[in-house]
Amino acid sequence: MRIALLGGTGDIGEGLAIRWARDTNHTIHIGSRDPEKAETRAEDYRVALTDQGFDVDIHGSGNEDAAAAADVIVVSVPPQYAADTVAGVADGLEDDNIVISPAVAMDRDQAGFHYDRPAKGSIAEVIADATPDGVPVVGAFQNLAAGALTDLDNDLDYDVVVTGDDADANADVIELAEEIDGIRALSGGSLANSGEIEAITPLLINLAMNNDGMHDLGVKFK
Amino acid sequence: MRIALLGGTGDIGEGLAIRWARDTNHTIHIGSRDPEKAETRAEDYRVALTDQGFDVDIHGSGNEDAAAAADVIVVSVPPQYAADTVAGVADGLEDDNIVISPAVAMDRDQAGFHYDRPAKGSIAEVIADATPDGVPVVGAFQNLAAGALTDLDNDLDYDVVVTGDDADANADVIELAEEIDGIRALSGGSLANSGEIEAITPLLINLAMNNDGMHDLGVKFK
Repeated sequence: MRIALLGGTGDIGEGLAIRWARDTNHTIHIGSRDPEKAETRAEDYRVALTDQGFDVDIHGSGNEDAAAAADVIVVSVPPQYAADTVAGVADGLEDDNIVISPAVAMDRDQAGFHYDRPAKGSIAEVIADATPDGVPVVGAFQNLAAGALTDLDNDLDYDVVVTGDDADANADVIELAEEIDGIRALSGGSLANSGEIEAITPLLINLAMNNDGMHDLGVKFK
Repeated sequence: MRIALLGGTGDIGEGLAIRWARDTNHTIHIGSRDPEKAETRAEDYRVALTDQGFDVDIHGSGNEDAAAAADVIVVSVPPQYAADTVAGVADGLEDDNIVISPAVAMDRDQAGFHYDRPAKGSIAEVIADATPDGVPVVGAFQNLAAGALTDLDNDLDYDVVVTGDDADANADVIELAEEIDGIRALSGGSLANSGEIEAITPLLINLAMNNDGMHDLGVKFK
């Protein structure tokens, strides 16, 4: 499988990229608005993992080339850029691609972080709206902390909830998620159920802010 | 400590009542709009726990009498009745009482359950608005499944997130929560952070609906 991480030079993009690179044989395409930056970061990830003895396949390019080279496209950009980023690669998307939405819109006030629910219900649905009809969009990975992913000495033990309206795409993303060591993927049902999953992320930050010794939190359902 | 569960004949009220009755020495007051029903159910809980060898202290009465007899008042009624229920007992509330909000407003469509966020941000804040000034309101217990609590053979292993603007009241509720075997209580910060916690409950139901073998789900943060 070929996986593109648009905005793959950012925290969560880096985290997913290096976990998939380490734990699977998939080809990883790091995308960025700045192709040179993507190449540099891809090389950084490759060297770091190779030094640890892992055989990895990571490339860097502009977002458009990364998306065109991939089967699965993860829109790991800040939420305010999600729709434009998908629109920018839309011409290269085909029905057998899968677009994944890991982003969460938040705001902050004196009390803490809050979910900034988009009018469409979720960032996953914002991305679906910007994606050509027929290309499945799946919500996943919203509740993983970049810090937990990027520290490869950290054994993960987290759940990922997968939402989407295309059963085959959902199943593919569940498999992709569970190929990362320590991740259990659960079905959250339709894409319209994504908002409640995205809303957990500001709560995770509030918990880290208010409880000594807790940081880079994730969630398990039981 | 004397704990009143307004609407304590309902599922979550029953669950909290019998767990506190079994695991602590607190006095439990089951409240209901119908005092006779409250007395009958309190007697049911008492007999069931006594038969299992537990020494419990459970009483039943109307909501107003239950609140007046208690230090801590849990508003375990359906969300649409929360404000009226608090208003109905407000005359008996004093500054050293604590009001706890475990309720969640949800709606359901074809996709599943969704958080029906009140205009005030959360049911906890709706309840705070109906509570006399000076009486602390704390959000807690929203993500515990009644079925998990009422099955006393079920060993719990769940987190409860506590939110509120009165540090002493928060600390008391954290202690009360952790007196239930298998519950870890975390601080979620201000009462204004309650919405993201309430929003987890519809997600828990969606996960139970979409994943074989999962039911009566709760959450752990790690």
